[in-house]
Amino acid sequence: MRAAVKTKPAFGSIEVQKIDIPSIAPDEVLVKLKIASICGTDMHIYEWDAWSERRIKTPLIQGHEWAGEVAEVGSACTWAKKGDYVSGEGHIACGHCYQCRTGNAHVCDNVTILGIDRPGAFAEYMPVPERNLVKNDPDLPLEYATIQDPLGNAVYTVFNGDCVARDVAVFGLGPIGLMAVAILRHIGAKRIFAVGHKNEYRIRLAKKLGADRLIKSSEDDPVEIILEETDGRGVDEALEFSGGEDALKQALKVLKPAGSIHILGFYAKPVTLDIDTLTTKGAAIYGIHGRRMFEDWYRMQGLFKSGINLMPVVTHKFPLDDIADAMELMRSGDCGKVALLP
Amino acid sequence: MRAAVKTKPAFGSIEVQKIDIPSIAPDEVLVKLKIASICGTDMHIYEWDAWSERRIKTPLIQGHEWAGEVAEVGSACTWAKKGDYVSGEGHIACGHCYQCRTGNAHVCDNVTILGIDRPGAFAEYMPVPERNLVKNDPDLPLEYATIQDPLGNAVYTVFNGDCVARDVAVFGLGPIGLMAVAILRHIGAKRIFAVGHKNEYRIRLAKKLGADRLIKSSEDDPVEIILEETDGRGVDEALEFSGGEDALKQALKVLKPAGSIHILGFYAKPVTLDIDTLTTKGAAIYGIHGRRMFEDWYRMQGLFKSGINLMPVVTHKFPLDDIADAMELMRSGDCGKVALLP
Amino acid sequence: MRAAVKTKPAFGSIEVQKIDIPSIAPDEVLVKLKIASICGTDMHIYEWDAWSERRIKTPLIQGHEWAGEVAEVGSACTWAKKGDYVSGEGHIACGHCYQCRTGNAHVCDNVTILGIDRPGAFAEYMPVPERNLVKNDPDLPLEYATIQDPLGNAVYTVFNGDCVARDVAVFGLGPIGLMAVAILRHIGAKRIFAVGHKNEYRIRLAKKLGADRLIKSSEDDPVEIILEETDGRGVDEALEFSGGEDALKQALKVLKPAGSIHILGFYAKPVTLDIDTLTTKGAAIYGIHGRRMFEDWYRMQGLFKSGINLMPVVTHKFPLDDIADAMELMRSGDCGKVALLP
Amino acid sequence: MRAAVKTKPAFGSIEVQKIDIPSIAPDEVLVKLKIASICGTDMHIYEWDAWSERRIKTPLIQGHEWAGEVAEVGSACTWAKKGDYVSGEGHIACGHCYQCRTGNAHVCDNVTILGIDRPGAFAEYMPVPERNLVKNDPDLPLEYATIQDPLGNAVYTVFNGDCVARDVAVFGLGPIGLMAVAILRHIGAKRIFAVGHKNEYRIRLAKKLGADRLIKSSEDDPVEIILEETDGRGVDEALEFSGGEDALKQALKVLKPAGSIHILGFYAKPVTLDIDTLTTKGAAIYGIHGRRMFEDWYRMQGLFKSGINLMPVVTHKFPLDDIADAMELMRSGDCGKVALLP
Repeated sequence: MRAAVKTKPAFGSIEVQKIDIPSIAPDEVLVKLKIASICGTDMHIYEWDAWSERRIKTPLIQGHEWAGEVAEVGSACTWAKKGDYVSGEGHIACGHCYQCRTGNAHVCDNVTILGIDRPGAFAEYMPVPERNLVKNDPDLPLEYATIQDPLGNAVYTVFNGDCVARDVAVFGLGPIGLMAVAILRHIGAKRIFAVGHKNEYRIRLAKKLGADRLIKSSEDDPVEIILEETDGRGVDEALEFSGGEDALKQALKVLKPAGSIHILGFYAKPVTLDIDTLTTKGAAIYGIHGRRMFEDWYRMQGLFKSGINLMPVVTHKFPLDDIADAMELMRSGDCGKVALLP
Repeated sequence: MRAAVKTKPAFGSIEVQKIDIPSIAPDEVLVKLKIASICGTDMHIYEWDAWSERRIKTPLIQGHEWAGEVAEVGSACTWAKKGDYVSGEGHIACGHCYQCRTGNAHVCDNVTILGIDRPGAFAEYMPVPERNLVKNDPDLPLEYATIQDPLGNAVYTVFNGDCVARDVAVFGLGPIGLMAVAILRHIGAKRIFAVGHKNEYRIRLAKKLGADRLIKSSEDDPVEIILEETDGRGVDEALEFSGGEDALKQALKVLKPAGSIHILGFYAKPVTLDIDTLTTKGAAIYGIHGRRMFEDWYRMQGLFKSGINLMPVVTHKFPLDDIADAMELMRSGDCGKVALLP
Repeated sequence: MRAAVKTKPAFGSIEVQKIDIPSIAPDEVLVKLKIASICGTDMHIYEWDAWSERRIKTPLIQGHEWAGEVAEVGSACTWAKKGDYVSGEGHIACGHCYQCRTGNAHVCDNVTILGIDRPGAFAEYMPVPERNLVKNDPDLPLEYATIQDPLGNAVYTVFNGDCVARDVAVFGLGPIGLMAVAILRHIGAKRIFAVGHKNEYRIRLAKKLGADRLIKSSEDDPVEIILEETDGRGVDEALEFSGGEDALKQALKVLKPAGSIHILGFYAKPVTLDIDTLTTKGAAIYGIHGRRMFEDWYRMQGLFKSGINLMPVVTHKFPLDDIADAMELMRSGDCGKVALLP
Repeated sequence: MRAAVKTKPAFGSIEVQKIDIPSIAPDEVLVKLKIASICGTDMHIYEWDAWSERRIKTPLIQGHEWAGEVAEVGSACTWAKKGDYVSGEGHIACGHCYQCRTGNAHVCDNVTILGIDRPGAFAEYMPVPERNLVKNDPDLPLEYATIQDPLGNAVYTVFNGDCVARDVAVFGLGPIGLMAVAILRHIGAKRIFAVGHKNEYRIRLAKKLGADRLIKSSEDDPVEIILEETDGRGVDEALEFSGGEDALKQALKVLKPAGSIHILGFYAKPVTLDIDTLTTKGAAIYGIHGRRMFEDWYRMQGLFKSGINLMPVVTHKFPLDDIADAMELMRSGDCGKVALLP
């Protein structure tokens, strides 16, 4: 089969090779991929940053956002069938640690991740444990099917708060922040304040997806604007996707007393926070990681069925062979989600 | 002032009279009414059923759904201002019982109700305690402002469940059931199964407000249809507004394990339920009463701001002088919410 | 090995036989049992009631309350070790239905149960899926280890409410109701009203386990007593373990507005309930089934560690060979939990 | 009457003076005080730190922890009676801001505080709004009645988490941290890790109140000890009362994935936190402020009734005339809660 292989521990170094179709364990299925998409994590690996250096072993087939068809079913599998149209959770949880056994498999002590710790989806075929599969509705467009992993991040973040009919601020307008905007619009948030930094392309996308008020934080002060437009009351919920220290501080400032901040962003270094503001406001900060297995997947199915508009989020598609071009486009930031066709 | 007075303990017996403008207590305001609407409770009083016989003392000015302008402010009031565009909670809670002091004022031990225990809104002026007032957005249409009391019932019922992106069955398509359908559509319910009994007018309204599947229970079996269309899984949440024993039994049958039923309906007599089904399913039944003070009022403001479409719900408007005609229209059932203009 | 076998579909008909030690599947372990205990369900099977007729296939080795040592580990197991001191969840959940995938495995669509649908613990050895095992603290007494299945029922029921420092009524003083009393005492319930029907033995046990007020409902009216002693306020939480229609009706009457009833009881037939009381009170009824997997098991470990006193609950121990005597003692009701030693 | 008056904006400067008995507003009662106690906030004012300089206007009668008897009832009061044995919430909430109307009066936008913004309890008499009163059980010892304000802080912090039968770390062993230890013991926490810094007196008190493991952070590393004793799993809940940056960092490190930190501590300056640890763990941080009105007050009544042992917490009593000595004892730290008798 053809697969995009990160060949060595260095910037770029990704090339499409011919390799053997992988074999599967008894509790796995072999998925024939129809689409995959590029995550911010894939960019870290592409650029080979400090985190990649610590975590990744090359050669590696990346990719944990995907959809495909079950091509082969392992002998110990109990429900998957050849031909099933599937996507799946990229975090393979152990099932027996304290977290796994108490409804928190998304923070499993022993997790391994598709396309990070084992071969991923930037290929024609990929082995996946049956327990990680989710069957897609036959009518689900490939563009929606492939983005369920990051959409699940956005779903977890949004639904961790109480956002329906509430004022919500979204900090960070990368693909996941944009999806959050689309969800908030779909579920009837009162007003959506969308805060980007500089990137015009993504601020326009946020507008298209339904944000009420666009703020470019490199030019305007989100704190001033949001407090003014909420008559000083502040927002009920703040969602932080940017990973920027300034954004997190602004989130705390625009939060109403008894409100909550939900953080999915990844920070390069520790952040200096005024904890007394948090206590005086009686407010809360939630760290968000992964997706709830599998509550968030069912929630996504409900959003799809009820007609959420996410089509503008997937802005580009490339053949797998042009993966390097896709990666460079992602680096430019002038895109939403970028998909690959094997 | 002119006021519609229920003059004696008998069917009908409502007439518009000229009476003195009421005086107010120090902690009250006098509201000059701009609109009021008729509740199912008002029909009970109009028809003078057993409940009315026990509870109501004539003469009485009815009416607890309303909007108006503050005309006079009592000396001990702290924030209301002459000219404020207001509606308000009809339940006057005592503030010091166990429930009031623990976030459950909607089930206050010592409640009195506007238009039931004291003069109500079917008049030109009405005294209201300041603490029951809610300021309306200046742009809020009168039709929306007046229905907040029953809309609050629907909001409490819907938000007591986890309905966003979930399968929901609505039993009973009177005005409050219809409002629930509109809310569910607005907040992205996965599929809305709307179950009416016979009334074609209201089933058509439910369709217009966004129900996915209309079921007329006098002709078709809701249990069969809903289980079939959910592939046997059942609905996540069932909302019971009808007060019918059959409906409640059907709700329990179409409920998925670990699902919930939320009951606002009023039943004439005890209901025989299969409790073992409830336990085997690990399901829950919630009794809903009134509106959360004032969480549900703020939730409504958020729904309004985010553009919920409730206009089809208010189907008729009458001058106050024609209140008897309005009552008779309500009795026919060929209407949604009916409003009165003083 | 020796095993107590229900030999035919009739009353009693249980005899200890010599049979082959069972073999295990790759994902199972073989447990060498050290203790087992008798559940109410085992009594239904012993007495061969209508439910048994529908559900049970003879011959059957019963028993789903147990503790033992891992004697053999299947080839696909990942963490269990020979010699581990274990107990385990009796409900074998499928892992892939909607409930299993959304944190509700206790109401799995495809459950099979140890000692009901497959061989159980009234024997020297028993095969158990690894994923159902829970490791016991080495210091945990056998009497505590074996009752974790029913204790888990009590834990789920108690913790489904908000009982700490609250007034709680417990209806039904069988072994699970008694365990609920012990838990409530341990976690600082404000006052525990324990309602039995006639059985003096168990009412005395409830006293010993810490109930504040004992009520024998065959002689005194629980509603009158509880309302009087709570100054008319009612209890915050009511736990129903009896399966009696009267008890459930009483629970609804003694409940404060905005309170909750938690039902584990099994009812022979439908119950006629005044739903309008439920709605007027804004109260809730929860059906409880099984135990939360595995939250409730960890909760039990915490209760053990913090010193809960459950020793009085296990009142009798019999050699496995005397199982018929144990069953007859259970029928008399003059006991708490009865254990068997293989 | 006699009252301890902070006479000028400087260290100490507190003297007992003869002044007029205050008059009351229609919605207030006059309380004849029987006991009062000294809060950490009173120490800030005594020492006249930067916060006091900004917030406090002298002359001021301090004191917001107290119990007494209603001596006079204002004309607009509805339930308080002369002779009632009362304590009360020190935060006077406005009742009409967004927070007050949505169950969050503890973070009212317009709060005024007894003994800070208006005359307090270090006197013979004090006016209190009726809506802030809580009636005490006639049997409640004065020592318990007076500490309800800080005990309510501890109750809010403890019950904001899920501590029953869970591993909990308590950072900071001042009076409120000590009360938290007592509560955790009473409600059956699995293991209580109590972390003090240096103060031997308070570490011994924590031992007496039921902590399982005492850690003196100036000598031993709490992170190492707690992780070792929980087999690397970490604690389920961490409560931070110390206001120390190190303590908060340690709390984050000893927290299990999906656990929560609850902060009541007051920090002199911003804290540098590793937010990526928070997100990777999927953990939460809650800011705690005041007490839930009045849920936490009722919770305290339940704790008292069920026999919580708090007597060791109140270590010293002084006549009001010796208030300066009491303040100096508080400064030394060799005490628990210190009470004043008027």
